[in-house]
Parts: sequence; C-alpha cells; structure tokens
Amino acid sequence: MASQKATAEAKSNIAFIKYWGNRNNALRIPLNDNLSMNLDHAFTTTTVAFDAQINADQIVIGENEAQGAARDRVIAHLDRVRAIAKIETRARVQSQNNFPMGAGIASSASAFAALSLAATRAAGLELSERDLSMLARLGSGSACRSIPGGFVEWIAGHGGNASYAYSLAAPAHWDLRDVIAIVSAEEKKVGSSDGHSIAHTSPFLLTRQNNLPARFHRVRHAIRARDLALLGPAIEEDAVELHLIAMTSRPPIFYWSPGMVRVIDAARAWRADGLAVYFTLDAGPNVHLICESKDADQVASRAREIADVQQVIVNAPGDAARLIEAHLF
Amino acid sequence: MASQKATAEAKSNIAFIKYWGNRNNALRIPLNDNLSMNLDHAFTTTTVAFDAQINADQIVIGENEAQGAARDRVIAHLDRVRAIAKIETRARVQSQNNFPMGAGIASSASAFAALSLAATRAAGLELSERDLSMLARLGSGSACRSIPGGFVEWIAGHGGNASYAYSLAAPAHWDLRDVIAIVSAEEKKVGSSDGHSIAHTSPFLLTRQNNLPARFHRVRHAIRARDLALLGPAIEEDAVELHLIAMTSRPPIFYWSPGMVRVIDAARAWRADGLAVYFTLDAGPNVHLICESKDADQVASRAREIADVQQVIVNAPGDAARLIEAHLF
Repeated sequence: MASQKATAEAKSNIAFIKYWGNRNNALRIPLNDNLSMNLDHAFTTTTVAFDAQINADQIVIGENEAQGAARDRVIAHLDRVRAIAKIETRARVQSQNNFPMGAGIASSASAFAALSLAATRAAGLELSERDLSMLARLGSGSACRSIPGGFVEWIAGHGGNASYAYSLAAPAHWDLRDVIAIVSAEEKKVGSSDGHSIAHTSPFLLTRQNNLPARFHRVRHAIRARDLALLGPAIEEDAVELHLIAMTSRPPIFYWSPGMVRVIDAARAWRADGLAVYFTLDAGPNVHLICESKDADQVASRAREIADVQQVIVNAPGDAARLIEAHLF
Repeated sequence: MASQKATAEAKSNIAFIKYWGNRNNALRIPLNDNLSMNLDHAFTTTTVAFDAQINADQIVIGENEAQGAARDRVIAHLDRVRAIAKIETRARVQSQNNFPMGAGIASSASAFAALSLAATRAAGLELSERDLSMLARLGSGSACRSIPGGFVEWIAGHGGNASYAYSLAAPAHWDLRDVIAIVSAEEKKVGSSDGHSIAHTSPFLLTRQNNLPARFHRVRHAIRARDLALLGPAIEEDAVELHLIAMTSRPPIFYWSPGMVRVIDAARAWRADGLAVYFTLDAGPNVHLICESKDADQVASRAREIADVQQVIVNAPGDAARLIEAHLF
C-alpha cells in the first residue's frame, strides 16, 4: 500500500430518546436503546490519507493540529481501522465541521462517523452499514447513529458485536425540522464521555431506565405515524431526564445555560399560542426546536428574536454517511 | 367580644430539606420531614382586628384589597381561628411583606404564620407553639416552620395533630447567612400548592423519598456541628431534586429562570475559587446563597455584580414569630 486517500461526510444527529450512560464504557455499549434523526445542515467532512512516507499520524481538526486527548482519541480510532485492515501505515487526517464545536451539536457523532467511513475506505475496506456503525460507536457512542440515514435506531445490544444502528425510516419519510437555537458557541465544560461514565452514580438512573421502554415505543410509533403531537411531549420528557440524571450524578453536571432556559420558556409559550413546536436538548447549552416543515420559518424567525440566540440552524432529516471521493493507488 | 386587635410578625424561611408533595393535601401533611432556617430580613407583619360592626372579612395585602383565591384562603384561615375561639365575628386583616411577593421567597409561609399568631391572639386565644405551628400549616404548609425560631424541623407526622414544627437550634447557634439573589420580582406562574398536589405524578418521587432520610440526618447533623462543608452539598442536592420533581411532574413545572442558572453557575465558580458558598432554591426563580457570616459581604457584593440580579437580601437566622401589639377590650 503506497498512498490511499478517501473523503467522507457524515451528518450530526439529534436524539429523541437519549443515549446517556453505558453498560460497558470501553465498548460504549449504552444502557438503553435510543433513537435519533440525522441533521442535514450540521455535518463533518473528513479526509484520511494513509501515507507510507510519514511515521506518525497527523490530525488536523478545522484549522488546527489536534493535541492531547482529542488527538489520542482519533489515533486510537485509526488503530482500530489499521487492525481490521492489517496495516501499520500512518495517516494524515483533515476534519472540518460546518458548525461550531462543543456547542451541544454532537460534533463527535458526525466526526467519528465520517472518520470511520473515510479511514476504512482509504484502507481499502468496505464494511457493511452495520459493521461501520459498530466501528463508529467505538470512537463515539452516538457516532453509530450518524452512519445510517434519516430516522435511526441504535439497538443497545448485549455485546460489542450486537450494539449497532439502523435506519428506521428514510429522510423523506417525514418532513420534520430541527431548528437549532445556538445560545453559546463555547465548548462545554464537561464532555459527554465523562457524563456517561458517572451516570450510574445518579440515584434516579434506575427510574429513568424503567421509564424508557414505554417512551421508546411511543417515539418509534410517533415517527412511523408522523404524529408530532405524540412525539413532542415524549422527547421533551426525555430531554429533561438526561439533564436531571446529569444534575444528580456525583459530582453533578450542569449543562443548563441561561439562554437555554429562555428558549425553552419561549417555545412553551409559542406552543400555548398554537405553534406546534417541542424542545429537545443535548449534553450542551443549546436548544433543538422540533417542528414540521410548514412551521419551520416561523419557529426560526421567532428564535432569532431571542436576545441570547446567536445563530439558528434549520435542519431537515439528513442522509446516511457517504463517501465523497476515494483515490486508491 | 366588642373589638379585639393584635399585630404579629413572622419571618420567612428557607428550607434546607424541602417540603415538596403532600401525604394529605387538605391537611397539608407533607410526604417527608423537612428542615429550614428562618430569615431575619424577610418577614410579614399582620394585624387582625375582630370587629362586631362589620359583616364580612376585609383583607388588605400590601396596598390592595385581596381578591379571589388569595382572599378565600385567608378567610378560610380566619374561619379555623373562629372555630377554635367559638366566635363568628368578622375581621379586618392588614398584611405587609417587607420583600417582593411571589419571588421565590416563601411569602405564604411568613404570611400564614403571622396571620395565625395575630388572629389567635386577637380572638383571645393563647396556643402553644406546637398548636400554633399546626394551625399555620393548615393555611400554608411551610408556614408551620415560621412559628418556631432559628433552625426548624417540621415533623411530617401521620395525622393532622402530629404534623408540627419545633426549633432544632436557636438563631444564635450558628452565624449562617442566606444571601438571597433576586433575579425576578415577577409572581411565579405556578403556585407551590399546585406543585405539591401533582408531585406524586413524577416517576422520580419515590426515589427522592428513598434518598431523604439519609440526607435529612446529614443536614441535621451539619447544623448541630455547624459544619458548612457537610451542609452545603446536601442542600444543593435537595434543591436540585425539588426542581427535578417539578419538571418531571405531569404537566411539568419549570421554575428555572435564566438568571437562576447564571447565579448558580457563578456560585459554583466562586466555590471552586475557594469561597465557601452553596446554593439552594425554592419553588421560584431566585437563588439562596448560603454561607457563613464572615463571607456574606463577599458573596453579596459578587452577587450584585451579576447582571440579572435585581436585588440582594442578606439574612441571618431569624427569630420565632412574635406578637408586636395586642389590644383586648
């Protein structure tokens, strides 16, 4: 193998039933089945070039050479790909998000999904969607959901080879929108991985786990039936629960921001006024406003009027991760 | 009885272990033992004059004649006093808070404590502290904690005559301060009584009830030992739990405000910097910053620098409800 290069793009995703807490931290096997929608306007584009001329991986994220833990995490993922491909060649990696990092948009999800696809193709591998989602999962749990397209279910499974994601419905199935109200572009103080690893210290986790099967089926049914009035309250409940598990973990993690509270209050007031919009949250400070396409302009323009909102990104359901370019010599 | 008049003052209180949810809504018997500190700078002064010349109760709160539910609630309380005193005389009631109403300072606590003391004395009754606390409880649950002085325990009890408050320690026992950061003087949208009555709809309530006995004993021990490092984390946990029970009740109640989140984040940052301060919350938008007297100026001046903070009230442990004046003819 002389030089092999591939570029892939993967969408970020927003969970309707959250992934929070692992059954197995090392293998990132989640406590519960979870479910998301890919976001067509929030994505990562990653190029991986294996190059026999270099003797260390070179990782550039955005404009900057990656350092420390972020660099180690990418190298560990390249090592997984090298182990499957039975190569030792080092790689040049260039990764670019089209949205601010650490802003509650799951950047590690799209980043590790794009990296998994680009690196395996550059290494001459063609993994099935299922295997690719499991590889992505090892880099960042929710990255497995950014491999298939549209509305995606991640089956928790009971072992490393049974925990994967698949598409419940294609993007065209439902003209849903995620209007992301970005209230802070600062990087979050506590990463999701740390949150997952202490979720079990919350005395409320067991009750959440007991709540989930019924809610999961409600959300899945709502998606199949395209029923926003059924989906909305369930995703709000689940978003609040993620935060309460974080806030009652030891030590507690507060992902809330003043702007988040303001946007949630506004969304609830708009809904009381007849606008069909529901909020969800990630492990970050921003608010995802879920509505149908017919109401998206209205939701976006109202969100832009809120003083704390710095930017609004309107997302339709996004495609599966895809290969943009590959050069195999 | 011609004309009988009494004026009483009662302090508000801040709970360290919260009262949230009733075993019996009508009798306001709480789900759990709870514990508070009276606030010396947040109080209600109430004058009750029974007057044979009038044929309907006249209730003035602040500058205004009380209307609707607020008026009915005071009249129902006067009826309780009349039933004990075996009189039917109507009363003129004038009640005045020295702090903004509905701002997360428990105005109904100090109001019904002052009303209970003034009305019973005006009616010629001298109830024991225990009986007075039980009477106040029927008007507003947490009012029973504003009858005794200093650090107060409300024993949940299992019947209407076994649910009362008593003083764990006098005000002078510990030079603690509650620096209230008022971020909104608006009346809260959902009253505490409504919150109590739907607390049982939260799937997390049982876990909270299971958490409480250990935390209660930790807080009681911390007060006895004057140990802020032990008290602080326990009261923060309990404050967060009150809000999470409210947010997971059906329908959910969001007492959070943007300013509250900002003050909490600031307090946690100050503590990380070495300032011994801990937050607690009520069913309202403000933050109570608990520290020792030596740090109170520092905490108050930092709180005043936060843009959302409209007013800061520094409270030492407050006295028991007290009679100011009585005219019995």
